[in-house]
Order: sequence, then structure tokens, then C-alpha cells
Amino acid sequence: MNYRFIVYILGWILNIQGIFLLVPSLVALCYREESGFSFLIAAGISLAFGALATVRKPRNCLFYAKDGFVSVALGWVVLSMSGALPFLFSGEIPSVFDALFETISGYTTTGATILTDVEAMSKSLLFWRSFTHWIGGMGILVFVLCILPLAGGNNMYLMRAESPGPSVGKLVPRVRSTAVILYGIYAALTAVECVLLLIGGMSFFDAVTTSFATAGTGGFGIRNSSIAEYNVFLQNVIAVFMVVFGVNFSVYFLILIRKPKQILKSEELRTYIGIVAASTVLIGFNIRDSFASVWSALQQAFFQVASIITTTGFSTIDFNLWPTFSKCILVMIMFVGACAGSTGGGIKVSRIVIAYKNIKNGIESFVHPKSVRIISMEGKKVSNEVVRSVNTYIVLYFAVFVASVLLISLENFSFETSFTSVAATLNNIGPGLDGVGPMENFAKFNSFSKCVFMFDMLAGRLELIPMVILFSPWIWRKNH
Amino acid sequence: MNYRFIVYILGWILNIQGIFLLVPSLVALCYREESGFSFLIAAGISLAFGALATVRKPRNCLFYAKDGFVSVALGWVVLSMSGALPFLFSGEIPSVFDALFETISGYTTTGATILTDVEAMSKSLLFWRSFTHWIGGMGILVFVLCILPLAGGNNMYLMRAESPGPSVGKLVPRVRSTAVILYGIYAALTAVECVLLLIGGMSFFDAVTTSFATAGTGGFGIRNSSIAEYNVFLQNVIAVFMVVFGVNFSVYFLILIRKPKQILKSEELRTYIGIVAASTVLIGFNIRDSFASVWSALQQAFFQVASIITTTGFSTIDFNLWPTFSKCILVMIMFVGACAGSTGGGIKVSRIVIAYKNIKNGIESFVHPKSVRIISMEGKKVSNEVVRSVNTYIVLYFAVFVASVLLISLENFSFETSFTSVAATLNNIGPGLDGVGPMENFAKFNSFSKCVFMFDMLAGRLELIPMVILFSPWIWRKNH
Repeated sequence: MNYRFIVYILGWILNIQGIFLLVPSLVALCYREESGFSFLIAAGISLAFGALATVRKPRNCLFYAKDGFVSVALGWVVLSMSGALPFLFSGEIPSVFDALFETISGYTTTGATILTDVEAMSKSLLFWRSFTHWIGGMGILVFVLCILPLAGGNNMYLMRAESPGPSVGKLVPRVRSTAVILYGIYAALTAVECVLLLIGGMSFFDAVTTSFATAGTGGFGIRNSSIAEYNVFLQNVIAVFMVVFGVNFSVYFLILIRKPKQILKSEELRTYIGIVAASTVLIGFNIRDSFASVWSALQQAFFQVASIITTTGFSTIDFNLWPTFSKCILVMIMFVGACAGSTGGGIKVSRIVIAYKNIKNGIESFVHPKSVRIISMEGKKVSNEVVRSVNTYIVLYFAVFVASVLLISLENFSFETSFTSVAATLNNIGPGLDGVGPMENFAKFNSFSKCVFMFDMLAGRLELIPMVILFSPWIWRKNH
Repeated sequence: MNYRFIVYILGWILNIQGIFLLVPSLVALCYREESGFSFLIAAGISLAFGALATVRKPRNCLFYAKDGFVSVALGWVVLSMSGALPFLFSGEIPSVFDALFETISGYTTTGATILTDVEAMSKSLLFWRSFTHWIGGMGILVFVLCILPLAGGNNMYLMRAESPGPSVGKLVPRVRSTAVILYGIYAALTAVECVLLLIGGMSFFDAVTTSFATAGTGGFGIRNSSIAEYNVFLQNVIAVFMVVFGVNFSVYFLILIRKPKQILKSEELRTYIGIVAASTVLIGFNIRDSFASVWSALQQAFFQVASIITTTGFSTIDFNLWPTFSKCILVMIMFVGACAGSTGGGIKVSRIVIAYKNIKNGIESFVHPKSVRIISMEGKKVSNEVVRSVNTYIVLYFAVFVASVLLISLENFSFETSFTSVAATLNNIGPGLDGVGPMENFAKFNSFSKCVFMFDMLAGRLELIPMVILFSPWIWRKNH
């Protein structure tokens, strides 16, 4: 392990964090809020530690896969710890566990909150919560790669460890250019949503924070009622943009380089749109009796489906009161999640597609044992290695899920609460059902459960492996 | 497909079924019950159809894997249909769906019932319910193989399609001898349990039926309170024998051929015992406050753990009232299930062990990408093919599970009821939680849901593939 180099990367994360922390202090200045000082102190601390760690560039830049995983895992821990400082310093979230929970929920774009009254928060802290979603959505290390010319050709390890999906590809040959293109698309789409929300009549503050939370597929609301108070136009804009940010960003890159025909071939995109459409129709039909018209039932169904499958977690309605069939569909798409290479969480549509094809293949090979079958996706052959890692990932996902539910169930909340609270955090969604439904929050859990949730949120965002490796020192201590 | 040969096998199943149906008519004679005639008529019908199909042996005995899967799936459907006749003829279960549900629940050793008052049934029908568990536990085709000298060396396809576990081996070179040895061990162990229950003070009728239900890991009770009314000694005997019938039968074969040392090396057995012990201690500790002593808490915990992990489904207590932690452990071990090659259901311990080793392997290969790692079990290398099929099986298992929960949730019972009712049928257990808890039954579901449960029970017992293939005619209609 190249510890010196890992510390150097962590230092850069703290430097960038220090600059990020200055943004909400400007917001505090506009609204003349005292909480601005908390951000300045936090920024100062981050920059001080960051400067210490980055004052000298390490000579040895040799970097392996395991260094990548450990850097990413530790990077996110450092990010969360420094990001929680403003909540503590301002006194608006006095408990350390709660402040950490809220910050991790922000960066991992989960959107689960321990706050019972969001509207009582100062504007600058509300801005910070939503801003963490935006930073976490695309990833802090991808941002580091944008600005930092790291020596050696191995910075792909960093990107791969932080980016979601079964196989991360570069859009262009250089990792740094890929990172810049990704952040460019991300910022542009966020800006478009923000403008549309302003046109729809939202206030500037609401439009900016809501766009941040949509772009990162986070879901922190700045109203206690989440999105329910806004008009139908605004709800639809948000719903469409949730779906947009759940799409693999390489699709937008293909539009940029004028190869739109390739988009239509994308099996992942078609499956994703198909699941959204089917779930919307099934739920809309199931809940139609509670609405004035079928259209408003479908509109509400679409918003909630888009919110859950992209793992954003906004809500316009208490779906906890829906029939069991609709709730079961929501729980199912909680695990499906968004596309690989998007800002969303969950298992990811591409993994589901590969797993499905592998099952079909497996059954056929039972019937015709001697025939050789190949799985292909997006027109390319999927290697046996990828198929195996997808299967392993899904089984590991359920293992982490089951272990977490067991630990949460020690608190003796209902089965539904224990089950969906873990589903909502591991998949980076936010709300679940029953005790963690859209009108509820996570304040009711004890510190131990909150630690489990924090682990799950980080594990879900970083796709398990970095966190599992971080907590298995016997693996990374071994020499090659 | 060799349809003629499949019909021949189905005919032999009906012949044997006809003889099995005569046994409860003797019970009816002893108790002077009119229901005896229902059995005689059902036996007559089975034997008539059986004779028609077996009067001439087919010339073409060529037999492929897909023929094996389709024979087994259709065999179990025919078995269930003919086995349901006595319930209908006697009028004790007048509905066709209910009679089929009860019979499939019997043969698949699930033990879920639609009866609200078991004690109102006539003795001969109670005997028949328990007897179906015993027949289904080891498998009807294994029985056919015992008595029928099928030509060709391909009858292993039949055994493999019916027997549980990731890789079915022969105990001795000849398939027929293997089948005879398995049934011999099965009958001997059943007899030993029966004698112990008689010594413990159980009546003869109770001892025989309870032994049948334990041996098949079925769980039909002949009392409304299941096993709760019996004394602690009897409860402990049943608990121990549930664990015994959840062990891979090759272990008992090793004892028979005096190679007990190899047993201690069995990783599956050690894991199975470990899970039982850990679950018992954790639950016992969790529920200790409701009991006079820690020992009685542990005794009750052991009974329920043994009953659920072996997928028997007997109960001595309403574990629906237990704390959420204990309930979550029970739900978890519902899916783990018993050992491969036992009469129990679920995913099977050996698959869990292989999946765990594969995950560990996968994480290590992330850290050290260039190293080659081999998974071994029971001292032998596990081929990549088996690892892949285990992973595929687990993913397919959850796919069938999720699809079934969605269909059941249309009835709008609680999330917990929908979830655990499918878990209880797909894993061949019987009771679940909430609306299908140990004090509840399956009478509340409509006919559509009962059909879903029937599919799940058969799919669980036959390990998915035969049922999935039966319902995918486009697969087996294809030529080689």
C-alpha cells in the first residue's frame, strides 16, 4: 500500500472541500445568517489539514487497484467528517452521530434525514445539504481528477472505484478529459433544470437547491412536505429530470458527438425506460380510485416511480398509504435502481439485464447441455468475468442487505420498517415504508442503527467493494 | 422430446400412487370411516390410467436432460392431481383449488394448509395428508427408480431433476441401488423417530403421522395447535429429528459404510449445525424475558429454529409475537434452508457456502487482480460451472420470489403477509409471519393467489428448473 500517496489524495479532497465550504458562507452573507461563520471555520480546518498533506508531492506514485479502493473509501469518510462540521459548529444539529448521518446521507445522495422540521433550518445550511448531493452525485474523486494532473497512468483505478456500474469505460482516451466532460454535462443539465424551475414559478433559492438534489439523485427537500406544495408543472419538470439524471451519462456524450443513432441501440436505456413506463402504468391503474382522473393518478405514479427508481427520494404524496401491490412495485424498483454511469444508486439496470440474460442462458444450457451460448449486451460480447462479477455483486448486495436488516431489527421496529429502512439507505433512496415512509424521518433510530445506516449509504454509493475492503484490513495488508 | 416415454413414466407414477392410496383406506377400515371409499375410488382411477399408459413399454428409450426435467415436472403435477381426489370425493375439502393446494402442500413437504380446523378431519384423511409428506420428502421418481429397471443409462437425469442440491452424486455406481439405499435410510430413520415418540407417550396414530411429517420435513400438524400440546420430551425428539432429516443423506451412508471420519470434514454439515446453534442462541437470548428460565427460552428457540431451517414448519409457540430481531433471523434461515441431498427445502446450505466462498474470492481478486484463486469444498475443487450455476440459481430464486410477491400483493394483505407467505411456500416451510403466522392458515387467499402458491411450492421442491422449463414450451419444443 502506498500510504503516502493515499494521504496526498486525501489532502486534495480536503483542499477542494475547503473551497466548496466557502460557497454556503456566501449564501449566509446574502441572508445575513450567523451560520456563515461555521462554514468559514470548517473551511479553514479543511484547508489547513489539506495543505499539510499536499505541501509536498510524494515521490513514489506507484498505485494499485487496492490503493484505489482504499483511497476512495477513506476519501469519502474524510469528506463526510469535514462536511459535517458546519452542522455541529452552528449548533443546528448538535449530535455528532446526527450531523454525520445527515452529511453522509447528503454526499451519498441518499436524502434520508434525521431532521423533524427542515423548514426551521437556516438557509445556508439548507443550501449546504443540497450542495452535498450535487458534489456526491458525480463523485468527489472524479472532481479531483478534473483539476489534478496525477502522475502515472493508474488514476483509472480511482475513477473505477468511485463510478457506478459493472464496467466503467473512458469516454475519451485521457481519464482527466473524461472527468471534465462528465462534470460539464452534469453542470449543464443542472442549469437547464434550474432555468425551467424558475420559469415554472419557483423562487431562486428553491430552484437552485432542488436542481442540486435532483441532479445528484439525492432527494433532500427544503420543505417539510418535500415536493407536494409545488404546482403540477414543477412536479413534472422535476420528475422528468430525475429520469434524465438516472440515465448513463455516456448517452449524453453520444448526443454531444452527434451519434444519436447509437442511443436507440442501448439495451440498458430501453430497459430502464420500459421499467419506468410499466411501473407507472401498473401503479397508476392500482391507485386510480383515490384520484379525480386517471391522468392525475398516472402523474402521481410517474413522479413516485421516477423518484424511487432513480433513487432520488423526493415525494409528492404519502405512498405509504397506497395498496400493497403499488408498495411492492416501489420496493422492487428500489433495488433495481438507475442506469450504470448515472448519479443514481441501486443494483443498476445493466446488472439486472446481464443477470437476466445469464439466467435465460443457464436454463437453456440445462435443456441443451452441449451447446455453447454467449451473452451479449449493447452489441458486444459480455465476458464470463463480467457475468461472474455481476452475479457475485448481486449476491453480495443481498448479503449486506440481510446482515444490515438483522442489526436494525435489534431496535424492534416493525418488519416493514426494518426491511425498507435498510433498502432506502443501501440503495441511496431516502424514504422507505411504514416507520420510514415519506412523511417520516430517521430521528427515531438509536446511534448504533445510525452507524449501520451510514455504512450502508457509503457501501451503496461506492458499490460495496471499497467499503468492504476498508473494513477487511487483512485483505489490504497482505502484500502482492 | 420422447413424449411416449414420458407418458410411460407418468403411468408408473400413477400405478404407484394407486398402491399408496390403498394404505389410508386400511386406516379408514380400522377407524370405520366412510372416507375409505374415496380412497378406493381414487386408487381405482389412478391404477386404470396407470395401466393404460404402461401396458406396453415404449421401444424408443432415448432420453435427454430436457425429457428428464419435463417428466419430473409433469410427474409431480399428475401426482398432485390424483392425490387430491380423496379430499374431493370425501367432501371434506369440497373446492378443487383447496384440495389441490392441500395436496401440493403435502407432496412438496410445505405443510401450509387451507384448513381452519384440522381436528375436524377424519383420521384416514389426516393420515393421507401426513403420508403425502413422506412420499414427497424423498421424491416419487426416486421411488419409481427403486422398483423400475429403466433401460438405458440416462435415468440419472430423472434423479438429478428431482433431487435437491447443486450437484447430485450417486452413492454407488448404479442409480437404482442409490435410490434403494436412500429410501432404506429414510424408512429406518422414520421408524426410529416413531418408536421414540411412542416411548415419550404419544398415541400410535399421532406418532406415525408426526414421524411422516418430520421425515419429509413437511409440517402438517394433526392438532390445531401443531406440536404445542405435546410434552417437552416429545418436542425435543421432534426438534432433533427435524435437524436429522435436514442433513445430507450421504452422511448417513458414510456411517453405514463405516467412514465416519469423513463426516467431520463436511463443510456443509458444519455450517448447517453452526447456523442452527447460532440462531438458537441469538433468539433464545432475545426472547428470554417471556420465559421462566433461560433453558426453556433456548428449548423453544431450538424447536422453532430447527423447524424453520429444515423447512418443516411445525410450531410450539406463536413466533409471530416475538421481537423483530428473532423474526428477522427466522425469515433469514427460511431462505437458507437445509442441506443439499436432504428432504428439506430452501436455497440449501451448500449453495450458501459456495456463494460465500465466491464472494470472498471475488473481493480478493479485486485487490489482487492478477492472482488466480480456486474455490474448494469438501476437499474438492468446485468447477467454475458449478459456481456459476449456484450464483445463477440464487439470482433466479430471488427473481421468482419477487415476481410471486408482486402477484400475491394484488390481494392487498400487509407487506409482511405478502412477503412471508411467498417465502413460506417457495421454501416449502408452511407458516410465515403476520397473516400466515403459525396460528393462521392460507384459507384467506383467493384462487389466483393459491395458484401462485401452488407453482411456488412445486418450483421450490423441484429446485425451479423443471417448473420454469415446463412453463417455457419455447425452450423444450426446440430441437437439438
